[in-house]
Amino acid sequence: MTLHDDLLDPLLDARHKGFPPHSPPLRRSQVGAQGWQVLAGDLPLPLAVIRRDALEHNLQWMQRFASDAGLVLAPHGKTTMSPQLFRRQLEAGAWGLTFATVGQLGIGVAAGARRCIVANQVFAPVDLLGIAALKRQHADLKVIFLLDSLAQLALIEATHPEAPFDVLIEIGVPGGRTGCRSHEDALALAARAHASRAVRVCGVECYEGLGATGQDAADRASAAALMQRVQAVAEALDQQGWFEDAEVVLSAGGSALFDLVLAGLQARLRRPVRGVLRSGCYVTHDHGFYHRLVSLANARLGCGHGLQAALEVWAQVQSLPEPGLAILAVGKRDLSHDLGLPVPLAHVPRGERQPQAAPAAWRISGLNDQHANLCWDDGEGTAPLQVGDRIALGISHPCTTFDKWRWLPVVDEDYRVVDALVTWF
Amino acid sequence: MTLHDDLLDPLLDARHKGFPPHSPPLRRSQVGAQGWQVLAGDLPLPLAVIRRDALEHNLQWMQRFASDAGLVLAPHGKTTMSPQLFRRQLEAGAWGLTFATVGQLGIGVAAGARRCIVANQVFAPVDLLGIAALKRQHADLKVIFLLDSLAQLALIEATHPEAPFDVLIEIGVPGGRTGCRSHEDALALAARAHASRAVRVCGVECYEGLGATGQDAADRASAAALMQRVQAVAEALDQQGWFEDAEVVLSAGGSALFDLVLAGLQARLRRPVRGVLRSGCYVTHDHGFYHRLVSLANARLGCGHGLQAALEVWAQVQSLPEPGLAILAVGKRDLSHDLGLPVPLAHVPRGERQPQAAPAAWRISGLNDQHANLCWDDGEGTAPLQVGDRIALGISHPCTTFDKWRWLPVVDEDYRVVDALVTWF
Repeated sequence: MTLHDDLLDPLLDARHKGFPPHSPPLRRSQVGAQGWQVLAGDLPLPLAVIRRDALEHNLQWMQRFASDAGLVLAPHGKTTMSPQLFRRQLEAGAWGLTFATVGQLGIGVAAGARRCIVANQVFAPVDLLGIAALKRQHADLKVIFLLDSLAQLALIEATHPEAPFDVLIEIGVPGGRTGCRSHEDALALAARAHASRAVRVCGVECYEGLGATGQDAADRASAAALMQRVQAVAEALDQQGWFEDAEVVLSAGGSALFDLVLAGLQARLRRPVRGVLRSGCYVTHDHGFYHRLVSLANARLGCGHGLQAALEVWAQVQSLPEPGLAILAVGKRDLSHDLGLPVPLAHVPRGERQPQAAPAAWRISGLNDQHANLCWDDGEGTAPLQVGDRIALGISHPCTTFDKWRWLPVVDEDYRVVDALVTWF
Repeated sequence: MTLHDDLLDPLLDARHKGFPPHSPPLRRSQVGAQGWQVLAGDLPLPLAVIRRDALEHNLQWMQRFASDAGLVLAPHGKTTMSPQLFRRQLEAGAWGLTFATVGQLGIGVAAGARRCIVANQVFAPVDLLGIAALKRQHADLKVIFLLDSLAQLALIEATHPEAPFDVLIEIGVPGGRTGCRSHEDALALAARAHASRAVRVCGVECYEGLGATGQDAADRASAAALMQRVQAVAEALDQQGWFEDAEVVLSAGGSALFDLVLAGLQARLRRPVRGVLRSGCYVTHDHGFYHRLVSLANARLGCGHGLQAALEVWAQVQSLPEPGLAILAVGKRDLSHDLGLPVPLAHVPRGERQPQAAPAAWRISGLNDQHANLCWDDGEGTAPLQVGDRIALGISHPCTTFDKWRWLPVVDEDYRVVDALVTWF
């Protein structure tokens, strides 16, 4: 069995959280034919599900968004780390994929990616060897990683003096994360990198998403200032003749302010420019942090519809111990809590199968490892819920919900399981 | 290949985060013979490691602690979800294991557990069927779960009127999580459960850990009040003759206040009492939340040594972009952040292998998905770190670090990899 075969169609069994305990092991591709229905109780809860309609919509929407802007898409794979979704993103037209680590890159290449950005500094011998081995295995594989310091370059040269590795000069923000803080530092680094036989300078990169505040004017200003710096560095490198590939990659684009980087990825240089958007969370979107930020992008773009939330976590009411309080059997082990707590979306009374919109007053007030507290104002007197009722929770931040599941069912509009994805975190 | 074989000695490969990308796939049991050394760069970072000496110490310490108190141990398996650690806990003398879900229970039974507590309300048909199937497969398997409402009992009776399932009456805290809020509610529930053929009342349970504040007097008072209620309910049920098993299980004990529940688990009843401690985090302990709370327990117990932190996450400095700031290639995807940020423990300059204690002034000021910000006061002028240096981070809350890793190497005092664990979250 090769890595590749097992990656795309692995065997799932009752060790996988959410898999029916009485089902025999099944290949991933067999799951959709079992006739399982989430609201009929065919699968144990809690369970994270992907809504097929919203997923399809998002795959197409973001691809079209990038294409319409004259850019290509290299979605960040770290969001889902799902070989099946990587394939879907590539089939939808993605130019390549982005990863955070060389380990993630290995999964992506096994899933079929051939143009890859590692949006991080690579320098450790074990990681450089990993990239070199992947390139030997796949003659058509392009891997580009980020360079932001002379110290990093020296480490690469120490073990791979003549590799050469393709790199993007990273431009960073004072007070931010990685990346050159000044124009001068970026140019000095690029000059040294151009002179090195360990790397080839292929473009310029930044990540504008750390500056996202949700305040439109501030977000516009911070993105514009950063993209202006990217362009100035790209123009300087172009004039110096320090770019070493047939085209110049300019790349930016998280999942919050992606509409604000378009213009900055379209410089006029002597070599052709390849503008690469790297958004990752768009693929399932969310009901929290990204919903709020992308609503602003929708307003800026004048498009009412935009992305749709495709990821929900279903849970059961296990106890109603006090007025105004329900304890759900779901917790930090099952969904994200780092950029906001989950929000109740829908309610299905026990024994029923028809979701009702959750009252606006319901809210999740706290999470433990395996429990969530659902609260409401007890003015009515009678509890609006019973033990055994099912609640759909919308999440905030897809990345930190995906990494809690080794597989996720894909469901149709009636919550019938029509497909399955696996993840490799 | 059976579930059981594959569970204890699975094949690991480069899809598993932290596995060397150039190594061929290996059985878990082969990893310790590879001669890998973490600080020699044999494995990609970031990497969570278990220190063998501290792990061994903790396994023995907590087992002796329970035995000396006349109690038995059913460690909470949700902390690690590691079949190998489950085996180690059972071999060290644990009476049984505790789980949060029926899915987790399945992993534990496959690993060899035969006395299991599901410390949660079970009622969904798919979960009850799962327990029934496990009991059919293993005639010697005992599974006890929690009961806290008439509604839950009615749901069990609706699908399994004559099972019977073994249950503990759960006592809860006003403003807390699950569990009966009053003595009268607990007695009414027990009376109804005793009359039911769907369940057998085997004991009384509570979880005192939610009340942990780190203030000694308050913690003593809240634990004492809760344990008094557990004892009062146990005595009433005993007098009524509503316990239905040969021995009465009284169970409590998270990982923070476990010393404060000892007396409360030693009631004098007509039937023999089995006092069951359920601590989970003790097995690796931590450098944060549990370190602080268990320090208080150590002081109460008059023992200076107590538990030792066995879980560390190693990461690399990938960038030094500004004075006083290092960016580490490690993030929320790799370690816990829900009960406090990680703390720098040790520093190994690039090319070296000898850890030095991290200066007290270093601190982690923020985490992204795949990055951490390490800050220090820049008074000295020269950076105390270089790109490529390695940092050991201590974590706060083992449960939410374990669930970020599918395997973890076990290391000796020189960080040589001597064994490996896998997890099933």
